[in-house]
Amino acid sequence: MSTPRPELLSINTATVREQWSLPQIIAGCVRRDIRLISPWRDQVASAGLKETARRLRDSGVGLSGYCRGGMFPAVDRAGRKAALDDNRRAVDEALALGAPCLVLVVGGLPRSPDGTCTSKDLAGAREMVRDGIGELLDYARPAGMPLAIEPLHPMYAADRACVNTIAQANDLCDELAPGVNSGLGLAVDVYHVWWDPQLKSGIERASGHAGRLMAFHICDWLVPTTDLLLDRGMMGDGVIDLKLIRQWMEEAGYRGAHEVEIFSERDWWKRDPDEVLRTCIERHQTVC
Amino acid sequence: MSTPRPELLSINTATVREQWSLPQIIAGCVRRDIRLISPWRDQVASAGLKETARRLRDSGVGLSGYCRGGMFPAVDRAGRKAALDDNRRAVDEALALGAPCLVLVVGGLPRSPDGTCTSKDLAGAREMVRDGIGELLDYARPAGMPLAIEPLHPMYAADRACVNTIAQANDLCDELAPGVNSGLGLAVDVYHVWWDPQLKSGIERASGHAGRLMAFHICDWLVPTTDLLLDRGMMGDGVIDLKLIRQWMEEAGYRGAHEVEIFSERDWWKRDPDEVLRTCIERHQTVC
Repeated sequence: MSTPRPELLSINTATVREQWSLPQIIAGCVRRDIRLISPWRDQVASAGLKETARRLRDSGVGLSGYCRGGMFPAVDRAGRKAALDDNRRAVDEALALGAPCLVLVVGGLPRSPDGTCTSKDLAGAREMVRDGIGELLDYARPAGMPLAIEPLHPMYAADRACVNTIAQANDLCDELAPGVNSGLGLAVDVYHVWWDPQLKSGIERASGHAGRLMAFHICDWLVPTTDLLLDRGMMGDGVIDLKLIRQWMEEAGYRGAHEVEIFSERDWWKRDPDEVLRTCIERHQTVC
Repeated sequence: MSTPRPELLSINTATVREQWSLPQIIAGCVRRDIRLISPWRDQVASAGLKETARRLRDSGVGLSGYCRGGMFPAVDRAGRKAALDDNRRAVDEALALGAPCLVLVVGGLPRSPDGTCTSKDLAGAREMVRDGIGELLDYARPAGMPLAIEPLHPMYAADRACVNTIAQANDLCDELAPGVNSGLGLAVDVYHVWWDPQLKSGIERASGHAGRLMAFHICDWLVPTTDLLLDRGMMGDGVIDLKLIRQWMEEAGYRGAHEVEIFSERDWWKRDPDEVLRTCIERHQTVC
């Protein structure tokens, strides 16, 4: 494997969200010559959509994706409509920011108004997800905003995303938007899929549809992992064979960004954010 | 769905391991008229193998399984041989106790002598698991001890078991011991597999081989889950559709025990163990 092209490095803004605002992240990336980021909606809302679009343009920083749409399941029709409306706004924002895709974390079991999971109908939640993506596609495709389904690790099946494997995401693409450059595809995050015995075959299957592999997220799986959500590792500090998965992605035709997305309450969120970016750059060149 | 037969309830002894020794667990189960348990090797070692076998016989308590063999991968040949030797002893113990099967938690990435995961070769670990099970079968099959592969949740792929889906376990059975009553099968634990989009089809696939479905473990998935290992829920307190999965097991011909296995540092391990057993009995009848 050759060393990755440095200009493919992207910083998902969650990686330094505890230390920096979005304008600070953009400035910090420029100082380190990092030219791609993937911002979150709450950060964009805080900094202002138009202001952020201008800031990106002025600084020469592009997007590798926009985080995030999804969360389709809801206990009633009104809840599902509210989710769809919110997703349409996310599409509009992604367009305003020039994102190459809107990443979808599809949602888990529907929640009661008080926030508890009362349903056990996982198959039903998966149907709501399929229907929700289908409806959002009707809006996003004519607008020219690709949607990237991100399969999440099975430990999030109940509360974050009931699409948990590449196979499931491929199935959804085949059903809702078959063919090539169909506006629906996959975000492959190594943290979520590294364990899957069908990972390689799933990436190969996606390769049959140009444009389906829309994003590639990197970090690492620590042993031990001490928190289900906020204990992701820096590339090289865990057990994921990052070079091997990048090889599979490239063999499948993927030429896009390598987006670092690390939620790390005990470690990287406590460090000097400049050091975090420096480490991302170095690890991207050495272990990815 | 009909109510489960009460006599199918089994207590995996981990469920009250913090409160009671194995002799206390056996006595506690007898008091509640629970006639099946699944003990762990360390508990049996503490209580004595012969003494435990006698105690079980005298009390009329049987086993639904024996926990556990496995942990096949190792960094070198000596390590793999040591694991195999230890697994043979586990088979002997299971025979002495009259267990219907030895449950295999197959192991994750091989560890260095200092306990760290240095390998990222997940495919290689899976090959070691296949080879290890194959070798153990050569010992267990003539001895008459069935081996039950337990797919573990993908969040344990690195450190506990790199067999993470029913499909993988079925593949191993097909490769190593095809046919019916072949001495190799599956332990289906809802905690590990409830999220799997291929769960139903995997159980159906196993049903084509009489004797392959060897064990059925129950508990629940809490939302939120606060610990990767020790925060399992009591049946009914989480989001797993237990009746549905039991229905799939029964449609596949499974008629065996319903084994409650709960690791719960923050809740059930802190309670009066009599109350825990009482709750298991009640929930088994109402939500399983």
